[in-house]
Amino acid sequence: MSAPPNKQEQEETLTFPSSHAALIDPYLPTLSPEKENEDRWEKMNGKVYLTLTYAHSLDAALSLSPGVRTALSGRLSKAMTHYLRARHDAILVGVGTAVADDPGLNSRVRLADCSTRQPRPVVLDPRGRWAFGAESKVVRLAAEGKGLGPWVLVREGAVIDEGRRKILERVGGGFMFVPVGTEGRFQWGDVLRVLGREGVRSVMVEGGGEVINSLLAADKNGLVDSVIVTIAPTWLGQGGVVVSPPRVEGPNGGPPQQVRLADVRWCPMGDDVVLCGRIAK
Amino acid sequence: MSAPPNKQEQEETLTFPSSHAALIDPYLPTLSPEKENEDRWEKMNGKVYLTLTYAHSLDAALSLSPGVRTALSGRLSKAMTHYLRARHDAILVGVGTAVADDPGLNSRVRLADCSTRQPRPVVLDPRGRWAFGAESKVVRLAAEGKGLGPWVLVREGAVIDEGRRKILERVGGGFMFVPVGTEGRFQWGDVLRVLGREGVRSVMVEGGGEVINSLLAADKNGLVDSVIVTIAPTWLGQGGVVVSPPRVEGPNGGPPQQVRLADVRWCPMGDDVVLCGRIAK
Ligand SMILES: NC(=O)c1ccc[n+]([C@@H]2O[C@H](COP(=O)([O-])OP(=O)(O)OC[C@H]3O[C@@H](n4cnc5c(N)ncnc54)[C@H](OP(=O)(O)O)[C@@H]3O)[C@@H](O)[C@H]2O)c1
Ligand SMILES: NC(=O)c1ccc[n+]([C@@H]2O[C@H](COP(=O)([O-])OP(=O)(O)OC[C@H]3O[C@@H](n4cnc5c(N)ncnc54)[C@H](OP(=O)(O)O)[C@@H]3O)[C@@H](O)[C@H]2O)c1
Repeated sequence: MSAPPNKQEQEETLTFPSSHAALIDPYLPTLSPEKENEDRWEKMNGKVYLTLTYAHSLDAALSLSPGVRTALSGRLSKAMTHYLRARHDAILVGVGTAVADDPGLNSRVRLADCSTRQPRPVVLDPRGRWAFGAESKVVRLAAEGKGLGPWVLVREGAVIDEGRRKILERVGGGFMFVPVGTEGRFQWGDVLRVLGREGVRSVMVEGGGEVINSLLAADKNGLVDSVIVTIAPTWLGQGGVVVSPPRVEGPNGGPPQQVRLADVRWCPMGDDVVLCGRIAK
Repeated sequence: MSAPPNKQEQEETLTFPSSHAALIDPYLPTLSPEKENEDRWEKMNGKVYLTLTYAHSLDAALSLSPGVRTALSGRLSKAMTHYLRARHDAILVGVGTAVADDPGLNSRVRLADCSTRQPRPVVLDPRGRWAFGAESKVVRLAAEGKGLGPWVLVREGAVIDEGRRKILERVGGGFMFVPVGTEGRFQWGDVLRVLGREGVRSVMVEGGGEVINSLLAADKNGLVDSVIVTIAPTWLGQGGVVVSPPRVEGPNGGPPQQVRLADVRWCPMGDDVVLCGRIAK
């Protein structure tokens, strides 16, 4: 919970040691030649690889409160996040995060071959409430060639502001339409299908609380391929935005269904730890 | 969140590898000859060494709910808990835990020299609401010579049930009286003083939620010498008994005071991780 980063810190290039990358790589989608990738994708019946990743405090808080950007993790785990971004085709957040943080959603890490690779920013915004403009960070970075233009997923039938549509299209982004259920929510299967249709083969879901909790719920986490959580040795205290899935009743009124990780690996990184795993079936 | 342990599992002897112990030892009170220990104690102005230790899920829950005993950690981290108990003079819990779990509060670990060493169980029970009997686990273990008789700390002036007093005294335990403030709470300084007067030089505080949260609060954590937290790779879901200290306002209405650990060490143990640290000043 140090002071928010200044502009220089926000834009510097990061490196992530290959010794650390080797620990994380087994939990990432394969980086294979175009053709192989597509064969794999066919074999997986067109399932987009979904990595759930975020950083929280010991008391499982992503931030002090929804409106407050809270720096939690150290340099190394921050570099890891940017490495993860480079290893996925898309990076997805809920509109709550887009509004609260004005995030950049690009990758500033230099890969082993000194290249950089940018993920597609995706924002779930069914009601179109994200009031972005040309000065929003993700748009500005795309305009400067430091990231890709964002895709904003809105509900089918949403009325689109012409000015905003132009802002997105000028940087290679755009609006996309996804059906919503009675609660105004997309189904995760639909979201992945829409992204898959556009060529996305892997997506990293980064937040915020509501998005993560909905993906972890015992009856919905079948789409999650791997989980990478950074834990910082600090307590934000009662009242934060907390990662804790809703409980799903066990069979015959038994205790709630547990959500457990398998293939667990804990990687200390600076003062933080990074937990990698897959949802146990 | 596996099934509760059966009786046999509950009573078997545990071993904790010395390679793992070496990682944890720097965070424990020194085990030195009687005389040295007392010299050190004088130098510390009679401060009882306080280790805060507990196990929780990724969503910081100690248990599914106050009444439900929830097995969280694996074999190795469980053996560690018993090792920690052997390394302290006393082990302390709140009455909430005593009532919910009927805990044993003894040490079942064989130390490097094949000996065992028992901590003094201490229960904070200002209102005397713990309805223990001769069959309560901690009393039974003491009667069988597998643990020490518990000390129950009640508020000054509390009326003591004669039958219970006898049960405790028969196993070498007893009631102790500590003043309470307006909220019916002991001050931690008073609790440590009472224990110190009885020869206790180190105490391990094991739970539950209320006790831990009160000791972690930014304005009260000065008495904590080290923190040892086991984290299990599972989510218990919304509604558990959660470790998250109350927020303490920052200076001049700034963001809440952070509670951070220094001297951090993360030790993977089986599927769990054990975090050791000291409260950063
Ligand atoms: N530490 C980290 O790693 C990290 C990462 C990201 C974010 N954060 C923090 O998280 C906080 C924001 O979290 P949050 O829970 O408030 O918001 P959020 O999860 O980012 O966004 C929630 C919103 O996204 C939309 N949404 C979510 N799931 C949807 C679905 N299945 N279908 C359609 N729309 C969906 C809904 O918008 P509508 O309400 O308009 O329907 C919902 O209100 C911020 O404080 C941010 O700093 C931290
Ligand atoms: N996973 C783990 O490592 C672990 C370890 C221990 C416990 N647990 C779990 O934690 C849960 C119990 O937690 P809990 O929060 O309900 O109860 P708790 O913290 O064990 O006990 C709280 C009670 O202790 C007394 N107390 C606490 N602080 C006091 C103080 N400063 N002065 C005087 N009295 C004080 C108060 O009794 P009065 O209300 O009578 O005043 C208070 O209600 C159980 O489910 C248990 O399984 C888990």
